[in-house]
Amino acid sequence: MSDFAASTDFSTADFAFMADALRLAAQGQYSVHPNPQVGCVIVRDGVVAGRGAHLRAGEPHAEVYALREAGESARGATAYVTLEPCAHHGRTPPCAEALIAAGIAEVVVAMPDANPQVAGRGFALLRAAGIRVRHGLLSAQAQAQNPGFHRVMAGGRPWLRAKIALSADGRSAMTSGESQWITAAPARADVQRWRARSSAIITGSGTVLADDSSLNIRPELWPDASVLMPHPERGVRQPERVLLDSRARLPLTAKLIAANGSVRLLHTAQAPAERVQALAQAGVMMHCVAEAASDRSASSGVAIQAALAALTEAGHHTLMLEAGATLTGAFLRAGVVDELIVYQAPTLLGSSARAAVTWPMQRMIEQCRLIVKDRRQLGDDTRTMYQCVLSSEE
Amino acid sequence: MSDFAASTDFSTADFAFMADALRLAAQGQYSVHPNPQVGCVIVRDGVVAGRGAHLRAGEPHAEVYALREAGESARGATAYVTLEPCAHHGRTPPCAEALIAAGIAEVVVAMPDANPQVAGRGFALLRAAGIRVRHGLLSAQAQAQNPGFHRVMAGGRPWLRAKIALSADGRSAMTSGESQWITAAPARADVQRWRARSSAIITGSGTVLADDSSLNIRPELWPDASVLMPHPERGVRQPERVLLDSRARLPLTAKLIAANGSVRLLHTAQAPAERVQALAQAGVMMHCVAEAASDRSASSGVAIQAALAALTEAGHHTLMLEAGATLTGAFLRAGVVDELIVYQAPTLLGSSARAAVTWPMQRMIEQCRLIVKDRRQLGDDTRTMYQCVLSSEE
Repeated sequence: MSDFAASTDFSTADFAFMADALRLAAQGQYSVHPNPQVGCVIVRDGVVAGRGAHLRAGEPHAEVYALREAGESARGATAYVTLEPCAHHGRTPPCAEALIAAGIAEVVVAMPDANPQVAGRGFALLRAAGIRVRHGLLSAQAQAQNPGFHRVMAGGRPWLRAKIALSADGRSAMTSGESQWITAAPARADVQRWRARSSAIITGSGTVLADDSSLNIRPELWPDASVLMPHPERGVRQPERVLLDSRARLPLTAKLIAANGSVRLLHTAQAPAERVQALAQAGVMMHCVAEAASDRSASSGVAIQAALAALTEAGHHTLMLEAGATLTGAFLRAGVVDELIVYQAPTLLGSSARAAVTWPMQRMIEQCRLIVKDRRQLGDDTRTMYQCVLSSEE
Repeated sequence: MSDFAASTDFSTADFAFMADALRLAAQGQYSVHPNPQVGCVIVRDGVVAGRGAHLRAGEPHAEVYALREAGESARGATAYVTLEPCAHHGRTPPCAEALIAAGIAEVVVAMPDANPQVAGRGFALLRAAGIRVRHGLLSAQAQAQNPGFHRVMAGGRPWLRAKIALSADGRSAMTSGESQWITAAPARADVQRWRARSSAIITGSGTVLADDSSLNIRPELWPDASVLMPHPERGVRQPERVLLDSRARLPLTAKLIAANGSVRLLHTAQAPAERVQALAQAGVMMHCVAEAASDRSASSGVAIQAALAALTEAGHHTLMLEAGATLTGAFLRAGVVDELIVYQAPTLLGSSARAAVTWPMQRMIEQCRLIVKDRRQLGDDTRTMYQCVLSSEE
């Protein structure tokens, strides 16, 4: 536990340097999963001596890059870090020790590690070495940069974004299922960015069986990918694709399997053993999870809470749901959707077209109120990011 | 016919004075129906000497107010007028004569009168008196200020705005019909403004029988009404309420009849004579129009083109449709909706709620593409003004 309170004595310069560290952290947004985005700025006598960002799990942390750049200037300097420096030996040596070894005089941190088992241990190590430590600077911004990571570390469920595309009259497909394309290229490129910001993409068997989609990130659909990716030469990090498929009906020939990146399939005890074996043989990670207690069809038969628990255990903290109306409705009703991303095209698909979200309600009082967090124009389409008022906070 | 072409030799000062005249014209937007919005600025030696706007049918035109304010300064001055000055004796004497009598030296006009029977006659009168006349300055803006007036004058159909309110998932009511309120007070106040900008509000018998709405302008719902209305002490101009009601089922006790302002009912030969008589007795203007050739239910049984023709003949050029999903769908399908105003609330009403627009389509190719003309936030709700790509231009 953190044994001291957040500071309140930050200067204008402190704010500016931490804001810089937060911008650096965002460089990792498409590549750092399952680790959090972290940035670090080292300042000596009011001048920036080193800057660093954590870009990829297994690679050096932000502090290490910043210390390398600062070199001897780190001695007596202040380090601004967006997250409490780690005190444990993971895939890389602890950053707190690196800061101490470099002779850093003061560390300013945006927020402590949310994991109660480790929070404050980085601080304690630094303070034991005589380093002045302050924290709580732009902590809300740091929190918003890694909402899933922080919530999972604190024992909560992963951050979940559900994406739907619909017409001005709220429809996502014709009765026949025909739906390509409601939205245009700029909106579809934007979807690629959200996929890249996620550690896993969840979908349902209905969608995969109908569309045979790969749910992969395709940089060719994303014109500015090379600008935003830290190491385009190494290729794009593919988020894990997660299929809710109670009976393990996924064909072995599915594009989901053939495409680059790993696939996880959550099935129930309903799945025939030979299907489970065949899919495992094909490289699909197979998980047997609990069956939905009721309304089986609504979530491809898999209990949503069980699915989220399995994904949390697998190390995921930022999920994107790209599913049909039924599964999207089930997740919304379960109160586990943190952000609903709606791409709306300026068109009417008419009253016999399919609903974007299956959720039967009878009375106005049952309505699911939303809060608009962001809205922007993407070509002719509009993207609105809604917060679900009903989503339960753990 | 105008016998000379639009000028192209306008100065920066000309643009500024005409822009001022257009702003003045907009003062009449809530009150001047069925006349067009017109503004006038009189400039002597580069200084504004008089300004005027046409505020209410039967009251003096913009030029008259501006000349009154200018007084003797009008002699040798330039008059900027947003519409060709009238040359005919209507409810007021012709403005062209007033400009001549005042000794105006030059008249700059945004656009000629669109009525081919009168266009150019005002210009001819002015030029015969030795006045220099130029036109075509900010004509697109002047056109957009009175789109219905100009189109009707040119022999076309009235400008029609259809308003719908729906949820983020495109629904306008629960299955039961329950729908109050999807949108909040700022959006509802905005509806009042659009009503006030219309010469008539059209609705269907289904809506009136279900909701018993008055469709009146209620200044108490419109906090800034007194600021925007030119003569609040005289009360609000109530647009005519027009009911499409083939069988004349409107009850004599309906709020539509009791509320302030005139009511017009368009029925077909299906209506019983005694109902027609009783409603006429109650002060409702009764019109028998053609029956819809097919799909009778879709337009309350009244042929939409016949209804528009009747309203044009009655002097209307700017209409607002506030109807249920069926009638709104019928107008959209008929290609007579110029602007679709969508109020969208941040809420999900679910997949069993009612569609906002009844229009069955089977294939994506049938979709009705829209163009976003304007979008703004009204409290928590969003208003989007769409142009219907399929709407036929006459």
